[in-house]
Formats: sequence, C-alpha cells, structure tokens
Amino acid sequence: MDLELTFTQYNIVYNAFSFTIAAMGATTIFLFLQRGQVAQKYKGALAISGLVTLIALYHYWRIFESWGAAYTIEGGMALPTGEPFNDAYRYVDWLLTVPLLLIELILVMGLSSAETRAKATRLGLLAAIMVILGYPGEISQDAGTRWLWWFLAMIPFVWIVYELFVGLRQAIDNQPAEVRGLVSAARWITVVSWSFYPIVFIFPMIGLTGGTAYSAIQVGYSVADVVAKAFFGLFIYVICARKSELEFARSGAQQPAS
Amino acid sequence: MDLELTFTQYNIVYNAFSFTIAAMGATTIFLFLQRGQVAQKYKGALAISGLVTLIALYHYWRIFESWGAAYTIEGGMALPTGEPFNDAYRYVDWLLTVPLLLIELILVMGLSSAETRAKATRLGLLAAIMVILGYPGEISQDAGTRWLWWFLAMIPFVWIVYELFVGLRQAIDNQPAEVRGLVSAARWITVVSWSFYPIVFIFPMIGLTGGTAYSAIQVGYSVADVVAKAFFGLFIYVICARKSELEFARSGAQQPAS
Repeated sequence: MDLELTFTQYNIVYNAFSFTIAAMGATTIFLFLQRGQVAQKYKGALAISGLVTLIALYHYWRIFESWGAAYTIEGGMALPTGEPFNDAYRYVDWLLTVPLLLIELILVMGLSSAETRAKATRLGLLAAIMVILGYPGEISQDAGTRWLWWFLAMIPFVWIVYELFVGLRQAIDNQPAEVRGLVSAARWITVVSWSFYPIVFIFPMIGLTGGTAYSAIQVGYSVADVVAKAFFGLFIYVICARKSELEFARSGAQQPAS
Repeated sequence: MDLELTFTQYNIVYNAFSFTIAAMGATTIFLFLQRGQVAQKYKGALAISGLVTLIALYHYWRIFESWGAAYTIEGGMALPTGEPFNDAYRYVDWLLTVPLLLIELILVMGLSSAETRAKATRLGLLAAIMVILGYPGEISQDAGTRWLWWFLAMIPFVWIVYELFVGLRQAIDNQPAEVRGLVSAARWITVVSWSFYPIVFIFPMIGLTGGTAYSAIQVGYSVADVVAKAFFGLFIYVICARKSELEFARSGAQQPAS
C-alpha cells in the first residue's frame, strides 16, 4: 500500500519526474542530431547514448502516469487511491540501460573490435546480473531477504568497479592526452552515480521510512538517473566530438558537412 | 488555493498558453529543419536552440493541461476545482533552458574549444544557481522570505549581466563586422527579456494580487518565454546563417545542399 503524503512531498516527486522526462527527451534529441557531427567510429556510441535516454524517457513517462494515478489530492494531502504506484518500471529500465551505459563507455574508448566485443560482453552481462539480483530484494518487505539480495547484487557491482579501474586502466592510458582526463572522468561519473542505488536500497532496512524518506528516495532516483544517463551521455558526446576533431585534424580529412 | 477568476481572465491565460505552445513548436521545427543549412560549427548552437523551445513546448503543454484541470466554468466565472494549478513546471523548465540559452549565445560566437567550454560552464552554472535560488521564494507566501530569496537570486543574475557585457566584450569585438551588431543585440534580448521575471516575482510583495494581477502574470510569463526562447532562438539562427554565408564565401567552399 502506498503511503499518505503531504501535498508538498507529492508535488516535489511529481515535478522531479516531469523534470526527468524533459531532461531525457532533450538529451536524446541532442545526441541523435549531433551524431552526424562525429567520426564514423563514434556514431555507434552516440546512437546507444541516445537510446539509453530514450528508454529512460519512456519509463519515466510511465512512472509519472503511475504516480498521478496512485494519488488523489484532498484537503492539502495526497491520499493513495488504491491503485499502486509501480516502481518496478525502474528495474525494467535498468535491465536495458545499465548494460548499455557500460557499452557506451567501452565504445568511446575506440579499442580494437575484438577487445570491444570482449569487454562490452563481460561488463554488459555483469550489469544485467547486478540488476536481476537486486530485484527480489526490492520487492521484499523482509529486512533479512533484502540484505541477502543486496549483498548478492553487490558482487557484480564491485566486479564492475574493478573492471573499470583495473581492467580498463591500460585502455585509458592509451587514450590521446587531450581526452584522457575526460574518459577517466566518465568512469568516475558511472561509479559515483551508480553508488546512489545500493545506498537508497538500504534506507528501509535502517529505519528511514515515512513520507519524507519515501519522497526523498524518488527524487534521489530521478537525480541519479539524470546524472548516470543524460549527463553521462552528454559527457560521452563531448569525448566523441573531441576525439573526432583530433582524428580529422591528424588525417587532414574534412569534417562531415551534415 | 487557486483564485476565483472571471471567465475573461481565465480565457486570456488559456489562450496565451496555447499561443506559446504553437510558437515554441513552430520554432523548434524551423530550427531543426534549417540546422542543415549552416556551417558545421554552428549546428550545435541550432540543436540547442531547438531543444530549448522543445523543452518549453513540453512544459507549456503540461501547464496548459494543469490550468484546464484547475478550473471549472460556472455562471460566467472560473472556479477552482481543488486540483491545484502547477506553476512549478516553470522552474523545472528554467532549470534546463536558462543555462542552455546562455550556452547558445556562447556557441554562436565561435570561440576556441577551451574558451567555449570555460564560458559555457561558468554562465551555465550561474544560470542554474539563479533559478534554484528563486524557487524557495516562489513557493513562499511570506513577503520577507520572498525578498530574501529574490535578493539571493539577483546576485547570480547581476553576475551574468556583468559576464555578458564585460566578460564577453572582447569576444563580441572579435566578431566579423557584418554580424557584430546582431550578436550584441542577442545579448540585449537576453538581458531585457530576463528582467521580466524578477519584476513579476515582486508583484505579490507590493500588493499586486487578485485575479487581474494573477492572470496578467501568467500572460506576462508566456510573452517573456516566447521572447527569451523562440524569438531569441530565431535570432541565433539568423546569426548562424549570416556567419555561415561569410565563412563559405571566404573559404570558397560550396554551401551544403541540404
């Protein structure tokens, strides 16, 4: 059953969802438009970045509608209508977008085909397993069950962090000096923004419940998703544009006209 | 609680919102279509200009729907239905679009990559801080609280004006003679249209309340948004088109066919 909220709590969440829809939609169109501006080999990274924000736009649209249907405003309070707020859209979203986010990061590095395939497969699978293992905990009310699945999902998470910082060290050192700092920062954005999710997962297990915690979690998820997907996607764009410029300058070739 | 309005007051606001939807939508499509006509380096500016009006279109759509749901017409009057009119969409919109508007202005100047990044980051952050500082005042009914946040938000606003007129003086002096006046005018459009917002913010603090003031504010916001976003975006397009012509003429290259 959904919690009773004050109108302000309800409204902040509502506006955070709407903000996320606008941010994801705008980022998607920007990435698709500007995809024509980068070198051939980075077009795939921008296509995937734009798809991640498009998938997120779709899910936030559904989440927004579900939130509106779950509450009715009466006398300054937001009362549950009985139609449950569907939070599971998030897991469905993550199952698609989280592996793709890691693939974006691999693609922007411009590794060899074989290495790209190997790293993208390994990181993509780890990300999918992480999301799948988190789900049984998310839908459980029992603290013990939640801790168990949280712990299991943390194994692939830690493995991903290890791959990003140890497995990809060589690939990052091989980046042109002009973008090495940007690629390394993209990796940090991933790790820092993703850390938000397992922390929030613990909130109900450590007594952070009630309307304020509940609405703070929804706003927090929205902000984390905007950083991890839209802001990260724009960062990937900046790297692709910068690397394309460098490569066009070196080859003496003309930049594409459209 | 929303105010009771006369049918005329209600209807003028309703039509102003619908006008804004049409203006933003048309500008978006024009900018995206004409993006193919300008030189490589100005495509980013037109992509962002079109996104600003698209984001505004989205929010005005939601504002329009919220206005319709907030009132019911009875006996020649517009009576509140109890579903509150959500004005917060404006702040959510500004948080995204106001930094982007300044970035448009920087991009159209055609500065070096490093300078573009430095100026876009500084102005974008100042703009976001300005919007964030305005919000707590906007949702407060207390005149003292409103003045406090108004004053705090004015600090980044004045700083932005300073950056536009002093920080960018050199960049504007370096523009080709044929477009220098246009770029300078774009800066003036920004400052003049943006000044509308802090003035309207003060209305309730100086006793301008009631149905007439309330509906005048909504119409005023719509007009300011059309000037600051759609008209400004078209202005940016004119500058991009003119600069592209000059650069194509100088390089002897053909203009792209599409």
